Order: sequence, then structure tokens, then C-alpha cells
Amino acid sequence: MIKVSEASLSSYLNELKDEIEAALPKAFPTSWFVPEPLKEAVLYSLMAGGKRLRPIFVMAACESLKGNRKAALHAACAVEMIHTYSLIHDDLPAMDNDDYRRGRLTNHKVYGEATAILAGDALLTHAFYCVSQISSEANVPAEVILKITSELAQYAGMSGMVGGQMADMNGEQGLTSIEELEYIHQHKTSDLIVFALRAGAMIGGASEKQLHALTAYGRKLGLAFQIQDDILDIVGDEAVIGKPKGSDEKSGKVTYPYFIGLEASKEAVERLTREAKEGVIQVDLPYAARLLELADFLMNRDH
Amino acid sequence: MIKVSEASLSSYLNELKDEIEAALPKAFPTSWFVPEPLKEAVLYSLMAGGKRLRPIFVMAACESLKGNRKAALHAACAVEMIHTYSLIHDDLPAMDNDDYRRGRLTNHKVYGEATAILAGDALLTHAFYCVSQISSEANVPAEVILKITSELAQYAGMSGMVGGQMADMNGEQGLTSIEELEYIHQHKTSDLIVFALRAGAMIGGASEKQLHALTAYGRKLGLAFQIQDDILDIVGDEAVIGKPKGSDEKSGKVTYPYFIGLEASKEAVERLTREAKEGVIQVDLPYAARLLELADFLMNRDH
Repeated sequence: MIKVSEASLSSYLNELKDEIEAALPKAFPTSWFVPEPLKEAVLYSLMAGGKRLRPIFVMAACESLKGNRKAALHAACAVEMIHTYSLIHDDLPAMDNDDYRRGRLTNHKVYGEATAILAGDALLTHAFYCVSQISSEANVPAEVILKITSELAQYAGMSGMVGGQMADMNGEQGLTSIEELEYIHQHKTSDLIVFALRAGAMIGGASEKQLHALTAYGRKLGLAFQIQDDILDIVGDEAVIGKPKGSDEKSGKVTYPYFIGLEASKEAVERLTREAKEGVIQVDLPYAARLLELADFLMNRDH
Repeated sequence: MIKVSEASLSSYLNELKDEIEAALPKAFPTSWFVPEPLKEAVLYSLMAGGKRLRPIFVMAACESLKGNRKAALHAACAVEMIHTYSLIHDDLPAMDNDDYRRGRLTNHKVYGEATAILAGDALLTHAFYCVSQISSEANVPAEVILKITSELAQYAGMSGMVGGQMADMNGEQGLTSIEELEYIHQHKTSDLIVFALRAGAMIGGASEKQLHALTAYGRKLGLAFQIQDDILDIVGDEAVIGKPKGSDEKSGKVTYPYFIGLEASKEAVERLTREAKEGVIQVDLPYAARLLELADFLMNRDH
């Protein structure tokens, strides 16, 4: 029974991933002239693969309300562009100074720092273009799209994702508490997941109560996701996680296991996943099954 | 007669500047928590003075339609945030590597590169938050605000300002033609001025015909502004322009006077200014006087 459900989730995820990866390059109007290598640098990072988790959340949230997930594709592309720009800027020498990501050279290693900064700026800006296009194909009221615009700016901006990145940079001088670590995770990771769920749900016509429940689900899953990352860095298979084991400890990165130990971290992931699912079950969602499966899928992932 | 008009324009500009500088710090909700030094770095550059030309254009365009300029304040803040973020990122070592701007240390010299990158990202993101807030005080339909959102993303993005910056970076390897230089000026400078005028006009309830005329006005003034900058670098008073004379030539920057000479450049500024004014006179604008004065003011400026 569980096996069937898992197999079905995996083909569902592949289906969504295909739809998202087909939509991403089409999100740039062909009539626009963009000087090279800017366009190439933008697509290099945007089409570099990855789980496409955030845009999948946009579409799955829309479907949890029996909304048409195609109507959520513009918002899904917007979220992936924000995620991608944040990776490009985070990888810069002045930030994390990473040469590789997902086994490929990082943007600035291929195109140089100046182009990488501009590619990030271009993607960040274009995410808002994508949001502004939502109405063009779907029957979403302009007021709702404006609310999505405003929320994207909040969740991705200085009190959201960018704020989380700032706190993370500050934290490299040494974190003093698990609360600070949670602040970083909440804003650097959860905020964009929460926005993804809210945007998809708003396009699907969610009530305030449903939005509230999906927000709680996103916060808990976002934190569980990040703790799971910390755990995989210790116990994961190097070939599967795509980086040397123990690299967090080597780079002096402070993690959940550092504060509460490996076993308690595993328990935290399980507890947060359970609570995320319970919150979704308790609110009246027309079709919550995929969100429940997704929560388990993330907890059981090996990379 | 001209003297009276000029005095009056100057107090009008000061009035607008005061309104904009009072609105900018208020554009950040006080309930938001933003980790330091991010908020400080954002305000350091945003409140560093300058002509506030772009937000002034937003408000003047709104008033040219007899619109209430207070309704355009959110859009005015958005434009100034985009302008400020572009300066912060342009000044980075990987880009123009400037230590000073307007006589003060650049953002990354004070806060470090990582924070400067994030401050730029935060301002860029927050510009869209400001646009999403337009309706909250003014009676602007949500559809119009969405159109403004979409246009900001276009004029500021990869086919607009960011594209112009990319072309400028490419041009440092040597420009071959005045057409390339015009491309850079159009996108790096004019696009945001054009957006400022269009946004203000849309808030003022402009027709397509009026928008079209203001777009042409903005394009011509933007180019004239940039050529005037090139001229002032050669003939200006160092104490007034705030940088050493001839710094363009020293840094190998290719300019209008380089291609067509100083006299022809001066003539180009005069012709573009005249054409910009004619276009505004020919279309039916309820109150175009300030836009005409602004055009002359920019042509006659000494810094």
C-alpha cells in the first residue's frame, strides 16, 4: 500500500518537474533583446536541475484546493527564479565562495563575478515579471495577484530570505544559540517554501484559514528539511548527497546536531513532519493527499 | 521672466525632494525585523542624498495629468530603491570597483561586500513591495498596479537596466560604435527614467497616447542627461561635479564627445531637449509646464 503510494508520488513529482522545466525557459519573452552573456548565465543556473521542490510546492498547494495547477505555473517559475538568484549570489566569493554546485561550476566561475551578480539581479527582477503575468492565462483576480506580489517581496526580502542570509553571514562569526540557528533556517529556507505554498493556494482560491494551515505546514517542513540536510551531512552517502561527508563540521558550520546531537535531530525531523501533516489534516482541504505524501517523502530522502 | 520660472522650479524640486526623503524611510514597515547591519546598509545608501531625479519624474508625471502626486509616492520610492540598488551593485569591486560615491564611502567599503550585495538585493526586492502598496492609499485600480509591476520588471530587468549594465561591462573591452554607446545609455539610464514617467502617469490616469508621448520624452531626456554627464566630465567644475575632471578619459571610458566631439555633443543635448519638449507640447497634457521646465533644468545643470 505504502509502496504504491510512493511510486505514484514519484511519477507525480516527475510530471510536475517536467512541466516546470518546460515553463522556465518560456518565461522570458522571445521578443526581448538581452545582451550576452547575461541570458546564457541566467539560463545556465536556472536550468541546472535540482529537485524543483519550491515550484512543486506552488503547484501541489494549488491542487490541494482542486485548483488548476497550470494556472500556478507563472508563480512556480517566479519562486524557482528567486531560489536560483539566491544560490548565484550566495556562491559568490564575497559570500560562501563556492566553486561547485550540483557537480557543476558555479555561475561566477563560468561567467565571472560581474555577470553572476547581474544574472542574480536579472532573475530576482524577472520573478516579479512572472508574478505579474499570472492573470494572463488564469482567472485570478488582479487583487489576488497584487497580494502575491506583496508577499513575494516580504518573504524573499530583507525581513525574509535576504534577512536570513544576512543572519547566516553574521552567524559565521559564531552562533550562540539554537534560536539563532532556527531564525536563519526559518528565513533562509522556510520563508520561500511558505511563500510557494501560499501563492499556489491563493491561485487555487484558498480561504484565510486554509492559508494559515499551509503556512504552518511550510514553516515546519522548511525547518525539518534543513535539519535533515544537517543530518545527511553526517550520515549520508557521499555519492548520493553530492559532497564530502562532514563538510559542515570541517567548514565550521554550526548545525542542529551540533546543538542537540544526532538522535535528537532525527526526532525533531520526525516530530516536525508529523505536526506539519496533522495541521494539514485538521483544516478542510479538498485534496491534501499529495501534501501529506510530500512531507513523508522529504523526511525519508537520502539527498 | 525666465528667472522667476527657474526660482519657482527650484522650490518645486525641493518640495518634491523633501516629500520623497520623508517617504523613503517610512517605506519599511516598522513591524518587520531586519538583521543588522542589513537595515543600516540599506538606509546608508538610500538616504545618501542625490538629485532624486527619478522619483521626481514619477511625481511630476502624475501631476502633469493633474493627478494627486501623493498617490505616486510609493512608486517614487520604488524607483529610487531600484536606482540605489543599481549603484550599490555597480560600485562593487567585481563591477566598477568604486570607493566613493557622492563624496562618501561606497556601501561595500563601509559594510563589506557580502552585506552590500545583500543590501542591493533587499532594495531591489523592496521596490516591488512599494509598488504593491500603491493601492492602499490611492484610488488606483489593481489592474493598473499590476501593469506598473510588470513594467518595472521589464524596464529594470535583463532587457532594461540590468541589460544596459551588462552591455556597459562588455563595452569596457572597447566599444566599436556610437550605436552601442546609445544602447548602453538607453537601457542603463533612460529605461528607469521612462518607467518613472510611465508609472507616475498611469497613477495619474494617463491614456495610451499620453503614455506614448511621455515615453518618448523620457528616452530623449535620458540620453541627453547621459551626454551632458560626459560633457561635464570634460568642461565641468571639479568642486561642483564631485570628481576629478577628465576621469572618463583616464579610466578609458568611451563617451559621446569621444565619438562626435565636444561641440556636436553639446548640440545633441540641445536637440534632444528641444525634441523632448516638443513631444510633450504636442500631446494633450493638462499640465505639462513642469516637465518642460525640468527638461531645460537638466540641460543647464552644472553637475
